[in-house]
Amino acid sequence: MRILSSLISSSASFGHKFLSRFTLRSLNAASLRSQAPPSAASTRHSTQMDASEESLRKALADKQSAVEAQGIAVRQLKEAGASKPEIDAAVEALNDLKVVKSAIENRLQAVVVGNDGGAAGREAFRQAVVNTLERRLFYIPSFKIYRGVAGLYDYGPPGCAVKSNVLAFWRQHFVLEENMLEVDCPCVTPEVVLKASGHVDKFTDLMVKDEKTGTCYRADHLLKDFCNEKLQKDLSLSAEKAAELKHILAVLDDLSAEELGAKIKEYGITAPDTKNPLSDPYPFNLMFQTSIGPSGLSPGYMRPETAQGIFVNFRDLYYYNGNKLPFAAAQIGQAFRNEISPRQGLLRVREFTLAEIEHFVDPEDKSHPKYSEVVDLEFLMFPREEQMSGQSAKRIHLGEAVSTGIVNNQTLGYFIGRVYLFLTRLGIDKNRLRFRQHLANEMAHYAADCWDAEIECSYGWIECVGIADRSAYDLRAHSDKSGVPLVAQEKFSEPREVEKLVIAPVKKELGLAFKGNQKMVVEALEAMNEEEAMGMKDALASKGEVDFYICTLGKNVVIKKNMVSISKEKKKEHQRVFTPSVIEPSFGIGRIIYCLYEHSFYMRSSKAGDEQLNVFRFPPLMAPIKCTVFPLVQNQQYEEVAKHISKSLTAAGISHKIDITGTSIGKRYARTDELGVPFAITVDSTSSVTIRERDSKDQIRVTVEEAASVVKSVTDGQRTWDDVWSSFPHHSSGPTE
Amino acid sequence: MRILSSLISSSASFGHKFLSRFTLRSLNAASLRSQAPPSAASTRHSTQMDASEESLRKALADKQSAVEAQGIAVRQLKEAGASKPEIDAAVEALNDLKVVKSAIENRLQAVVVGNDGGAAGREAFRQAVVNTLERRLFYIPSFKIYRGVAGLYDYGPPGCAVKSNVLAFWRQHFVLEENMLEVDCPCVTPEVVLKASGHVDKFTDLMVKDEKTGTCYRADHLLKDFCNEKLQKDLSLSAEKAAELKHILAVLDDLSAEELGAKIKEYGITAPDTKNPLSDPYPFNLMFQTSIGPSGLSPGYMRPETAQGIFVNFRDLYYYNGNKLPFAAAQIGQAFRNEISPRQGLLRVREFTLAEIEHFVDPEDKSHPKYSEVVDLEFLMFPREEQMSGQSAKRIHLGEAVSTGIVNNQTLGYFIGRVYLFLTRLGIDKNRLRFRQHLANEMAHYAADCWDAEIECSYGWIECVGIADRSAYDLRAHSDKSGVPLVAQEKFSEPREVEKLVIAPVKKELGLAFKGNQKMVVEALEAMNEEEAMGMKDALASKGEVDFYICTLGKNVVIKKNMVSISKEKKKEHQRVFTPSVIEPSFGIGRIIYCLYEHSFYMRSSKAGDEQLNVFRFPPLMAPIKCTVFPLVQNQQYEEVAKHISKSLTAAGISHKIDITGTSIGKRYARTDELGVPFAITVDSTSSVTIRERDSKDQIRVTVEEAASVVKSVTDGQRTWDDVWSSFPHHSSGPTE
Repeated sequence: MRILSSLISSSASFGHKFLSRFTLRSLNAASLRSQAPPSAASTRHSTQMDASEESLRKALADKQSAVEAQGIAVRQLKEAGASKPEIDAAVEALNDLKVVKSAIENRLQAVVVGNDGGAAGREAFRQAVVNTLERRLFYIPSFKIYRGVAGLYDYGPPGCAVKSNVLAFWRQHFVLEENMLEVDCPCVTPEVVLKASGHVDKFTDLMVKDEKTGTCYRADHLLKDFCNEKLQKDLSLSAEKAAELKHILAVLDDLSAEELGAKIKEYGITAPDTKNPLSDPYPFNLMFQTSIGPSGLSPGYMRPETAQGIFVNFRDLYYYNGNKLPFAAAQIGQAFRNEISPRQGLLRVREFTLAEIEHFVDPEDKSHPKYSEVVDLEFLMFPREEQMSGQSAKRIHLGEAVSTGIVNNQTLGYFIGRVYLFLTRLGIDKNRLRFRQHLANEMAHYAADCWDAEIECSYGWIECVGIADRSAYDLRAHSDKSGVPLVAQEKFSEPREVEKLVIAPVKKELGLAFKGNQKMVVEALEAMNEEEAMGMKDALASKGEVDFYICTLGKNVVIKKNMVSISKEKKKEHQRVFTPSVIEPSFGIGRIIYCLYEHSFYMRSSKAGDEQLNVFRFPPLMAPIKCTVFPLVQNQQYEEVAKHISKSLTAAGISHKIDITGTSIGKRYARTDELGVPFAITVDSTSSVTIRERDSKDQIRVTVEEAASVVKSVTDGQRTWDDVWSSFPHHSSGPTE
Repeated sequence: MRILSSLISSSASFGHKFLSRFTLRSLNAASLRSQAPPSAASTRHSTQMDASEESLRKALADKQSAVEAQGIAVRQLKEAGASKPEIDAAVEALNDLKVVKSAIENRLQAVVVGNDGGAAGREAFRQAVVNTLERRLFYIPSFKIYRGVAGLYDYGPPGCAVKSNVLAFWRQHFVLEENMLEVDCPCVTPEVVLKASGHVDKFTDLMVKDEKTGTCYRADHLLKDFCNEKLQKDLSLSAEKAAELKHILAVLDDLSAEELGAKIKEYGITAPDTKNPLSDPYPFNLMFQTSIGPSGLSPGYMRPETAQGIFVNFRDLYYYNGNKLPFAAAQIGQAFRNEISPRQGLLRVREFTLAEIEHFVDPEDKSHPKYSEVVDLEFLMFPREEQMSGQSAKRIHLGEAVSTGIVNNQTLGYFIGRVYLFLTRLGIDKNRLRFRQHLANEMAHYAADCWDAEIECSYGWIECVGIADRSAYDLRAHSDKSGVPLVAQEKFSEPREVEKLVIAPVKKELGLAFKGNQKMVVEALEAMNEEEAMGMKDALASKGEVDFYICTLGKNVVIKKNMVSISKEKKKEHQRVFTPSVIEPSFGIGRIIYCLYEHSFYMRSSKAGDEQLNVFRFPPLMAPIKCTVFPLVQNQQYEEVAKHISKSLTAAGISHKIDITGTSIGKRYARTDELGVPFAITVDSTSSVTIRERDSKDQIRVTVEEAASVVKSVTDGQRTWDDVWSSFPHHSSGPTE
């Protein structure tokens, strides 16, 4: 986007458009923004109301008028001293009208809540998950003893282990599998880098301030909350008004500062906490600012994404790769966004881990050598077309999506397929995962195509991975700013003859004709593309002169034949020098982990049936602890066996917990199921032990010596539990459960 | 240190003392400060000069005087019109003196350079290492295309892989082996946390500014450079002056701002770049400051260490561990220090990765259950005693160091042993690794004992790991500031009878006697320790009244018998509540990696003998790339075999490089030796291949199917190369090298 767009249109009313695009790019760059963009299927309030809601709102408004009219009639009858039966009849009619109105109100209420898709149930589910996560220290609000800081969370021990597992698998699945060049750059970034990338000027959200207390709010949040609340609670809303509010919700991300401010004024929205008036919206930069070195003269920022560290290193990385394309670089690291007022718990945070890939490719050849390995995958995709026409996501064959042009190119398709495999192998439910294509107005103007991997959770469809073909934008921006060419060369095996456009302004003539404006005219002539230039050449040949618009002067000038020579020349070239395109899959690790928690969580009855127990069904590879070791009863011999097995597990690199406290086996299982521990070894003899699988509760019997290696083979992914289940004697869950 | 010390003595001249201690604590907390503390053996310029240097300086001064005197004599003879033979004789005597002086100068120069321990050789070695590291992208100066930022470096692809390997091994060796609770907290930290820890007030270095340009310098660096330069280049320096400068170098870290400023003035030190006068030294806080949220009212900092994130979570972690001690928590993450003027390349940087352990333990029982596993280790230790008496580090049996009290306690000893194993298994040369105990004046007042793992490299002995018993300091500081008790309980199996001191001031009497000062007197009485209180009780019993100093009033008051009752009461207690001690091993990962590079680097002749080739002898576990696969000649069949092996390696999780460019085998080996790749598979048939080991250049022959698993077993550490070498047929290095 950024630089170019802002040059083309720097008017404030467009400013926010580009902000909005920018914000979305940032999202792609694995940001933690989650609002689904406006589309019939993904937005809770579509611009179209249900037929039933619309007619109900109309009926309700009619009845309300009728009730009011009848009320006036009753009062008039009373004032006029009408007879009691006359008055009673009128009152009865009024009451009838009120009953009908109330019935309509109830139906409308049901429809409105129904539109909300079982929000209450989702909320309850989320509470159950989040309570378990917080109680078992999967996460901890940071600096809790000091009452915390909004938008900052710690990973506690099991959360930290899950994160490690996700990152290790990411390295295996992407970096190792594709021979990517992984780098690790600092978070502290000097201003010039983020000036070039556009973040210093454009990485903002619109903010309003309580005019008396100075408390800050996100302008779009206040407007959104106002619209949602009106729609859900004000049943007297006219159908027209409701449609207007729904329209605002749909286009919220596209509103300019002026438009947002006007709406806030129009609706009389005030500060939520104090009801004080609000300032006009103004942009707030989301980067944490700091100062590098002691002078106070070198501003720096905490990086808002890791990608820039890769772009500025392109030249060295290209050299490291033997000056060959394509290649990918990758980076895992912290990124920072100083959110105005973080919401949505673990999904919208001020510091988070990103894993980003920048795959550099020849813009003229976006094929991928390993494309055939993903071509036959089929999964939920949600192309632009389907979103615009109000359809929903559908299963599409990836190869077909690429060959029919729904997905722009093979490399983009390859990464979409690899991301699908990554997420589903991690434990994300494939039925709650979709790849949504950006709409034209969501994409930066330079982007060739963008797809988001969205995962459905209790907050709705959450963007967790952005996969964008960003063309040559980023490398060009840094080339321009730094003066260091970030380009690739293709050496031709034989020199090629190419036709080159040559525009040669005749400066002497132009100087005579345009004096002080000569320079602007020369630049405008040289900036013509091939089509414009050849058009001018023809026009000059036929008419001898031509009107020519100079945008820097804001007017037409007359160009005569003697002022410029335009020709095409043939040249021999030995190589092609070009700026590579970049395809960027960018992963919000914290969001993926949160969705994994929700997709893995379930409850089941205790054996006695008197309790609901929590379980995380993490795949063994992701489980924070792979295995527990319990002696069945407190007994020195069993304890020694347990310690022996524990040592073998440590040697094999298997994280585990040994518990010799003598708590009942049932309680121990319940405790470890809640941490998602997939296997439990119970020592009930000195020669053999049982291994229990978490979800099936099935148990096998293995020798003491085998125990660690069996667990290792299943957690490493060399064997499945089914496989193990069929190879070892089964153990009936008598004494152990 | 911090809070308490600064309360006790807040005078400015002590301020820097505590700063200095603070800085050293920070070091322990894995900081990146490397100046060896003042000790005869570790400081380049000891306060004692060599006898030879001293006598040479004296002889030189004598000769200089003699030369001057003789010069004057010659001039006087000439002026007085003396005879030619007379003048010639005097001139000859002068020349003789000059020759002798010059000889003494040369000898002195040699001694001074000799004291420097072969600085030139070390510098050349470092250049060779650093050139290789930078050329092969082990690291890259960050934001290089924008001319970089001092003290910020990227890990390029091989560096990033080495770092990953070090961290994975750290997790295996510490977290997994000890069942530590790993957490992951944000870098952005609110002010209150770092106020409690003391960093906001005390985490400073002394800075001076060029009074005209405003350029900033570290005050101690300028004084150090001045002294070193004088000592090395000014041969006319008197022995006394040289001793003075050496003394300053020795006590540099202990100088106050005033003392530093006075020396800078005395020596006339000016700004190195402009020769402008300098400001007085003043403290500069080394934390990167920022602002959390949009209001600008919540200051925050980028954390200078990861430890605080663990301390503030103590209560939750203790609960997670079943309310049991001891347990350890660990954290790996970025830390930030806004150095005034970073030097020493990769050793002193502004952003770096720390790995920290906080092992919480009952202060009354610092035994460690796994102590027996390290008790018999023997390695270089450098106790306080040896440093003070000018001896050098020596091999000590760890168990003996603990049992004789050289090392304060078992747990501290255990971690020293584990750190030794960690570093040597990583590839650090055990002969260039020592554990140096902090001198009394280096340690914070609350610390029980501190040892630094120092690794010798071209910069000298570099502190890479700090292992400190910090007693209860950190938990108490956060308890006090937050009001949340960070304590542990020991439940007694049976209630215990304890004697408790009870001080009961009689407020009515005190109010009558002291009016408005009553509160201060009450507080002072209640604050007495047992000894003071029992002394007062006896005095009151015998004399009826006693003088009592109230520090908050700054004067004595008279306390009478009726004003306070002091007694000891017996109570039954069911538990003991106490603040745990913390033992903190803290690892500067970047420094360890840099030292590993130096210890792994060597040069050897090419086969033709015409070139010096660089090699990194990384252990397989640490090598950035484990293996390369080359077809011996370009040939489609061999290429297919190479690709097949490559796939098996990927599946086994072995990072490798496949090279089918057809470059000569010798060149390929040279390239990969320089990256420290330990194994190379050369495909010279379709059924079997050779595997070559980097350092020995030995080759074995294995079947195509075995290749990946053999490499995996050696890089995983399941087998050694010797083991493999004795199990497979050898291959003579005919065609392949």
